[in-house]
Amino acid sequence: MAGSLRHPTAGEVAQAVEGCLYGDAARSLQAIRPLEDAGPEDLAFLGNSRDGEQARASRAGVVLCGLATELGGRERIEVSDPRLALVAAIPLFHPAVAAVPGTHPSAVVGSACQVPEDASLAAHVVLGDGCKLGRRVRLHAGVVLGDEVEVGDDCVLHPKVVVYPGCKLGRRVVVHAGSVLGSDGFGYATVDGTHHKIPHVGTLVVEDDVEIGAGVTIDRATLGSTVIRAGAKIDNLVMVAHNVVVGPGSLLVAQSGVAGSTRLGRGVVLAGQSGAAGHLVLGDGSQVAAKSAVLRDLPAGSKVAGIPAIPMATWRRAQAGFARLPEFLRRLRQLERDDTEKE
Amino acid sequence: MAGSLRHPTAGEVAQAVEGCLYGDAARSLQAIRPLEDAGPEDLAFLGNSRDGEQARASRAGVVLCGLATELGGRERIEVSDPRLALVAAIPLFHPAVAAVPGTHPSAVVGSACQVPEDASLAAHVVLGDGCKLGRRVRLHAGVVLGDEVEVGDDCVLHPKVVVYPGCKLGRRVVVHAGSVLGSDGFGYATVDGTHHKIPHVGTLVVEDDVEIGAGVTIDRATLGSTVIRAGAKIDNLVMVAHNVVVGPGSLLVAQSGVAGSTRLGRGVVLAGQSGAAGHLVLGDGSQVAAKSAVLRDLPAGSKVAGIPAIPMATWRRAQAGFARLPEFLRRLRQLERDDTEKE
Amino acid sequence: MAGSLRHPTAGEVAQAVEGCLYGDAARSLQAIRPLEDAGPEDLAFLGNSRDGEQARASRAGVVLCGLATELGGRERIEVSDPRLALVAAIPLFHPAVAAVPGTHPSAVVGSACQVPEDASLAAHVVLGDGCKLGRRVRLHAGVVLGDEVEVGDDCVLHPKVVVYPGCKLGRRVVVHAGSVLGSDGFGYATVDGTHHKIPHVGTLVVEDDVEIGAGVTIDRATLGSTVIRAGAKIDNLVMVAHNVVVGPGSLLVAQSGVAGSTRLGRGVVLAGQSGAAGHLVLGDGSQVAAKSAVLRDLPAGSKVAGIPAIPMATWRRAQAGFARLPEFLRRLRQLERDDTEKE
Repeated sequence: MAGSLRHPTAGEVAQAVEGCLYGDAARSLQAIRPLEDAGPEDLAFLGNSRDGEQARASRAGVVLCGLATELGGRERIEVSDPRLALVAAIPLFHPAVAAVPGTHPSAVVGSACQVPEDASLAAHVVLGDGCKLGRRVRLHAGVVLGDEVEVGDDCVLHPKVVVYPGCKLGRRVVVHAGSVLGSDGFGYATVDGTHHKIPHVGTLVVEDDVEIGAGVTIDRATLGSTVIRAGAKIDNLVMVAHNVVVGPGSLLVAQSGVAGSTRLGRGVVLAGQSGAAGHLVLGDGSQVAAKSAVLRDLPAGSKVAGIPAIPMATWRRAQAGFARLPEFLRRLRQLERDDTEKE
Repeated sequence: MAGSLRHPTAGEVAQAVEGCLYGDAARSLQAIRPLEDAGPEDLAFLGNSRDGEQARASRAGVVLCGLATELGGRERIEVSDPRLALVAAIPLFHPAVAAVPGTHPSAVVGSACQVPEDASLAAHVVLGDGCKLGRRVRLHAGVVLGDEVEVGDDCVLHPKVVVYPGCKLGRRVVVHAGSVLGSDGFGYATVDGTHHKIPHVGTLVVEDDVEIGAGVTIDRATLGSTVIRAGAKIDNLVMVAHNVVVGPGSLLVAQSGVAGSTRLGRGVVLAGQSGAAGHLVLGDGSQVAAKSAVLRDLPAGSKVAGIPAIPMATWRRAQAGFARLPEFLRRLRQLERDDTEKE
Repeated sequence: MAGSLRHPTAGEVAQAVEGCLYGDAARSLQAIRPLEDAGPEDLAFLGNSRDGEQARASRAGVVLCGLATELGGRERIEVSDPRLALVAAIPLFHPAVAAVPGTHPSAVVGSACQVPEDASLAAHVVLGDGCKLGRRVRLHAGVVLGDEVEVGDDCVLHPKVVVYPGCKLGRRVVVHAGSVLGSDGFGYATVDGTHHKIPHVGTLVVEDDVEIGAGVTIDRATLGSTVIRAGAKIDNLVMVAHNVVVGPGSLLVAQSGVAGSTRLGRGVVLAGQSGAAGHLVLGDGSQVAAKSAVLRDLPAGSKVAGIPAIPMATWRRAQAGFARLPEFLRRLRQLERDDTEKE
């Protein structure tokens, strides 16, 4: 989201992104825009060398791009990692807006809560009893925290986020609108077709620097804790079940899901709409392709695809054969005819 | 949702749906009901000719059905398009209820907002600063609009919808409960396993006559705009990522997802639980079967299925072979045995 | 969620779970914890005999486990059904906390609502006109009920749940945060590429003892009712479309979906991320594997897997062949070469 705009010079941008400027350092840049929208006073971003054609055709004054990008001599800032450069460049145009500290009169704060003066509680925020907020915590409109929730310094909870009682968020955790943290897991004891609910008296711990997208649901543990470790990033509409551990720096892409008690190692990647069954261990750095379903433990460094997931290289070859199945059948029939004729 | 009920005559219904009445035009109809529930004073709806048996058995006084439907001479209204007739017939029984204009005292409206007198802001609605609402906009309980959100004439936002700052909705847009529009995209620059967030300073534009279901998440662009074009319809729990363009009149069925920067043409259909990878172009009128995953550009008019998606006809034949794989293997072994014996 | 803690004796636990105690009945237990966290004063839970190793290594004072579990003589309570025992044991440590009856001053209650004295309406709850709440109903912060919603005795609606007008919930229904009940179905009549909305004037009925997870969406019927029958349990981020009937005791696991007008029998199980197409009948006790897609009616007792779903045993054998497709192709080629040489 944009704050009030600033207009840095090309030189300032080059310095911030540690890039090499080919062009006029004093040129003022009005905005940072996509290649197709940028005008002569703007900086455009070329993140993907496949878009070189579009970059050459762009009206942008300056292009932020990778090293040695062929742009026909136009003004540019070359960097070794364009995406990382974007992280540094955008705030020059869109400085972060500090929240106004204080508690909106419509907010409802329970008893024995710790709310620092520099925290910001927007309209219709509700805190249960015994909540502890860190410094500069920002709770957007309609956020609900149950009893005894802890939220660390510099967390941002977007509108309508719900955190169930007893859950703990570390520092700099960002949660997008509508997500639900710490709901009961899907656990029943079934007797003669009747499902008896297992009370969920565990909790949820979200460590530092985790970002959670919109519409995500993360269940609390039955006993013990569901844990999202430091630096993990979770996209929209992801489901994390009870007692799961998501390892540090893991990436859970949109609409993926992890069933109960499964443990993801460090830097695991679940691509979009993929899933992992319950009670598994996915080793450090394992990668699961989009739409795939992991039904077995994965050793560290695995790259898998398919339902059930198998090594990605095997899956690719098998998948190539899949479309040719009707042809295989024809060839098999031909061989059988030949075989019969020879008898 | 139903307003207070009206009781049209069979003749009034026939006229409204431009159908041919076989029966008594003066007969008063109490309600429009499913075939199995309708009684002698009701109109029942036969949308699917496969349900003809049920229609013949129904106690309904009058049946709304397709042309030349075999119903054994019972009273009926025949139309060329039963579903379209339903669109016209239902409001005769359930007239739309106008919202009561005005702002509930518990609503919180930021500074410099434009709120027309005929807009309706329900309890606990929150508007940031600088929002602009069109005529007759209806915001249900607990809707939150960030700063500088624009909502066009006759939009309806159901309870708990969240619109992030700077997003723009056209006219007659309907958004169902709990959906989140304009959250940050899932974009990071990763260095040595640490994910640095790319600020999302783009926006989201939703054009006229779009309907968005419940629990949907649509991310804002990194730079530029995510765009949902006029007349597109999006079902529940769909995920639309940053910088996506959804073409006019496209249909995104429940739990489908579109990854970042992909562009859907006019009238594209993503069936339930399907997905499209990022940076693709899906041509006008392309159709993706349920559960499928599009990993390549699709030319206009494509019909595809599978993971990865291939032409639907190919997929059907291959899929038929899939279940026969054990049989193929047996036949292959038999041939190999025969082959060996002959040597 | 935990209330204030109690410390039962091992004997009290054994009695509550109808188990056989091997150990000191008078021993006071401080908490019930996972095997890896429990200390000498705690009860630990061994739900899965595969975790026997972990149980033997645990520091737990007492272990709750299945009959004849090999734990090397340590103190334990043996039961025939450990999960069912957990249902009984947990409340001994975490007694349920009764809600404080009454309506928070920030709640907004429409006209002609029935709200018993022992109901609990938290901050920012909104009730439309004509709502009827049963005894001891608990509405957490920010719940919104539309006009004429009925909620039976002892229901619990967690924060931000939205129930559209006219929907009916039975007794002891639990709905987790952010779920949306009764939104319009995805129904349009399309003429020349324009989608005309079919008004949804049906309703949603949720029967007794249903539990609905977080972020779930259940659509109302076009005409008639969508129905969730008694004792069904629905996990997070599940989608139930218009006019669906979910049979009694059915289990819909996370991120599964049911398309319009499909009817599930008694005790149907949809595993995680599975789906059923529209207008189908899934017979009593049918089970659908994770990630699968049901495209045809299922007879009672079916066990199916795959896209489209086929009998699970067939699918397993076919799937085993899938990974071997490249090998089949090689063997086929070899046979063809041999065949050619012999001619």
